[in-house]
Amino acid sequence: MIKGSTRLVAIIGSPVVQVKSPENFNNAFAQAGSDVAMIAMDIPSDGIDAFLSLARTWQNLDGFVVTIPHKQAIASGIDSVTQRAALLGAVNVVRRGADGQLIGDMVDGLGFVRAAESHGFTPNGREALVIGCGGAGSAIAHALCEAGVSVLAICDPDAQRVGRLASALAAEFPQISIATEIGDHSRYDLVANATPLGMQAGDPLPLSAPAIALLKPTAHVADVVTSPEVTPFLAAARARGLSIQTGPEMARAQLGLLGAFMGVLSPGD
Amino acid sequence: MIKGSTRLVAIIGSPVVQVKSPENFNNAFAQAGSDVAMIAMDIPSDGIDAFLSLARTWQNLDGFVVTIPHKQAIASGIDSVTQRAALLGAVNVVRRGADGQLIGDMVDGLGFVRAAESHGFTPNGREALVIGCGGAGSAIAHALCEAGVSVLAICDPDAQRVGRLASALAAEFPQISIATEIGDHSRYDLVANATPLGMQAGDPLPLSAPAIALLKPTAHVADVVTSPEVTPFLAAARARGLSIQTGPEMARAQLGLLGAFMGVLSPGD
Repeated sequence: MIKGSTRLVAIIGSPVVQVKSPENFNNAFAQAGSDVAMIAMDIPSDGIDAFLSLARTWQNLDGFVVTIPHKQAIASGIDSVTQRAALLGAVNVVRRGADGQLIGDMVDGLGFVRAAESHGFTPNGREALVIGCGGAGSAIAHALCEAGVSVLAICDPDAQRVGRLASALAAEFPQISIATEIGDHSRYDLVANATPLGMQAGDPLPLSAPAIALLKPTAHVADVVTSPEVTPFLAAARARGLSIQTGPEMARAQLGLLGAFMGVLSPGD
Repeated sequence: MIKGSTRLVAIIGSPVVQVKSPENFNNAFAQAGSDVAMIAMDIPSDGIDAFLSLARTWQNLDGFVVTIPHKQAIASGIDSVTQRAALLGAVNVVRRGADGQLIGDMVDGLGFVRAAESHGFTPNGREALVIGCGGAGSAIAHALCEAGVSVLAICDPDAQRVGRLASALAAEFPQISIATEIGDHSRYDLVANATPLGMQAGDPLPLSAPAIALLKPTAHVADVVTSPEVTPFLAAARARGLSIQTGPEMARAQLGLLGAFMGVLSPGD
């Protein structure tokens, strides 16, 4: 029950009816007995400037989670960002300092890595393939580098996008072999789909069926698509007996990271 | 439990930790089974412009209640106001139209009249005295005129404020006798304190003890002060056996009016 004393966090996007963060956060706040609530705010792009101005003076707002389509616009409108958010040009969480300063981070990729770790997959020293170099793919690629993969292959239909991300990662992680060609499918310990393929019935698979057949039996296969929970890509991997990780797992694994960044949950939540 | 689909209303003020509206509204929404929630937003004066800009584009915000110190600033910053809000130069509730237009009203005075009616006091044809011509006093005076009092006396240490309100009321309600002197205390059917006197221990009474002794035995005596609930003024009236009405009653009586204006409750709630 929200009261006058209740501190607030928000999730900002448009639309927001489908977002699950309010239920996940509000359950966690209730369990912790915290007088904090998360609201979902449906703000179109032309409202972001006003939102950021307001957020700087909104005394009982502790921070906000950022979702589609505002991750880039908010990254460029706030007062400071972490190194990884700067490299990625995107934020998915912002903390409001006591002085009203807005500080952003991008923990989509960390959520992915956490979810993988909960399956017993340790990225350090392993070879990974990330399909798709948009916001989610870039964040996952960066987090896998932070987690110490030895080889990272990235691919995307947009060659410029691939080139930019590869250069940025190579500059920050010179010890990691960054590839922009998939090459031998059987070398990868981790394969992640970070494209929207699989959301719509009839979408092509992000990797062809013959390519899926080549994956090594110990490969961990992940998807960022949240609906359906098990995409055709994951179903194909599961049919081969491979370990799979769903989009909702990645979202749930971020709860503590997002909440800790805003100062309203502990990282373990 | 707030979800992505939850529609929002807010109460805007600074500070807000003490406001009771979120609990009152959220209880009413829960009883009605509505997927609507009220949040309290602590926004200082320098955030009001940004708040109003944001409110126009905030798709899942249906409206907001306005409290101290923003009733005047928001009245002048929104797109349209009711006649009474224009006359009073203040709003305490704003509705967000589907086109993002912000429309304001001032129902503090109606809440007062509703609370009086719940005590069996009918203003029509009666003689009323309102002590204090600030925001609350002006709203109450106006609502008593709308409710058809035959005589309205108003007083305030600020003679200019009294004069302005008396002129405005006389212009809108030419059939009502508007007095700016108290005169004979025994004539009033209703006496309302709309000053802050009674909030602090040691405050003088808004009417002197000899004046209270002169009130007619059937007089209804009201106060806008919410804490303490029974002020020394009300205690003195009660000691004389007079009917009394507290500040919290006035606040509670507004719930349905505010909610109906924002389209989230029915007037009877």
